Amino acid sequence: MEGLFITFEGPDGGGKTTQIHKAAVALRAQGYEVVESREPGGTSLAEEVRQLVLSAELPLTNTTQTLLFLAARSEHVDKLLRPAVRAGKIVLCDRFCDSTFVYQGLANGLKLEELSELRQLNAAATEGFMPALTLVLDGRPEVLAKRRDARGVKDRFEIKGLEFQQALRNGFLTLAQAEPTRFAVINAEGSEDEVHAAIMKAILAKLGK
Amino acid sequence: MEGLFITFEGPDGGGKTTQIHKAAVALRAQGYEVVESREPGGTSLAEEVRQLVLSAELPLTNTTQTLLFLAARSEHVDKLLRPAVRAGKIVLCDRFCDSTFVYQGLANGLKLEELSELRQLNAAATEGFMPALTLVLDGRPEVLAKRRDARGVKDRFEIKGLEFQQALRNGFLTLAQAEPTRFAVINAEGSEDEVHAAIMKAILAKLGK
Repeated sequence: MEGLFITFEGPDGGGKTTQIHKAAVALRAQGYEVVESREPGGTSLAEEVRQLVLSAELPLTNTTQTLLFLAARSEHVDKLLRPAVRAGKIVLCDRFCDSTFVYQGLANGLKLEELSELRQLNAAATEGFMPALTLVLDGRPEVLAKRRDARGVKDRFEIKGLEFQQALRNGFLTLAQAEPTRFAVINAEGSEDEVHAAIMKAILAKLGK
Repeated sequence: MEGLFITFEGPDGGGKTTQIHKAAVALRAQGYEVVESREPGGTSLAEEVRQLVLSAELPLTNTTQTLLFLAARSEHVDKLLRPAVRAGKIVLCDRFCDSTFVYQGLANGLKLEELSELRQLNAAATEGFMPALTLVLDGRPEVLAKRRDARGVKDRFEIKGLEFQQALRNGFLTLAQAEPTRFAVINAEGSEDEVHAAIMKAILAKLGK
């Protein structure tokens, strides 16, 4: 039996890391084999690329950044994600193609109908490997910002401030609206348990439970 | 006045590095401003990517390799090559897009008419920045192999043996035949001075001299 590829998207501070782990634990308790991963990351090459791109010193162009992320993604899909799904596992991934479409696309001045080049590049990198379900952990930037500040870590994206966070939020919501079958928007402003319950409901629905 | 972007292509061992430097010296003596560069390389990011890709330990997929090279190329075009050409300089570059089309394409099992995805990816990475003149330093693999062995350095491409070198040669010749206005095929089996003379003739013709 084929597994299921599920991605978690949204601006930082929405609790993706915590919620992915909680979902993994809950799904394992129901007998599923679950793999947790993240982008950019998941393989040793991807981790090297992640370090290159996220180090705030290097001024990379948008196109260079996109291609580096896609190189890492290609490796990630080929070595880890696709084999796991083929082996029947549920794969939970922190960020995937929709982060590219938002960070390098919609929040970077492109309109929804101008994403075709990014979509083509992504399809070339992944050979069309796409999530069956994408959960957007959504909330008002000022609410999510408080969690982010509590973490105390800033990278090149997080430095850009509230206006950019609003553009990110709008970007993810625009994608979700355009593809309602693949996306589920989760209210990430609730308590950890409330958010977890909403996520599990969406995943179990996709699993036909 | 716009400058001129010239690339040097062909399998390793054809003397590209030596000939680029000789051409640069000769052109400078005629009063031209000349920039020498190479791919993968030319910027600090590109050098890091070059190290990643060429280190023989890492087993990268073809797509990942291509995207990493294109990320480096994007940076190279944006930060170095295009600004130099816009400033009126002659830019001599050791390898560029045609190495992608041969190493990741024609010598990797694709036919000429199957290069469209690679060409699109390259166009996205470079925003259409292409050489005005491409010199293929061409020769029989067994002749060029002797020079390569004399250098004593092997990387992931050079390890593959004579059959692969033949596929590379055929690849570059196929590209040259398909685009005779941009390409000039130089016999690289001659003496250093003979090859240099042929290269200068092709460059001066393109400069209208």
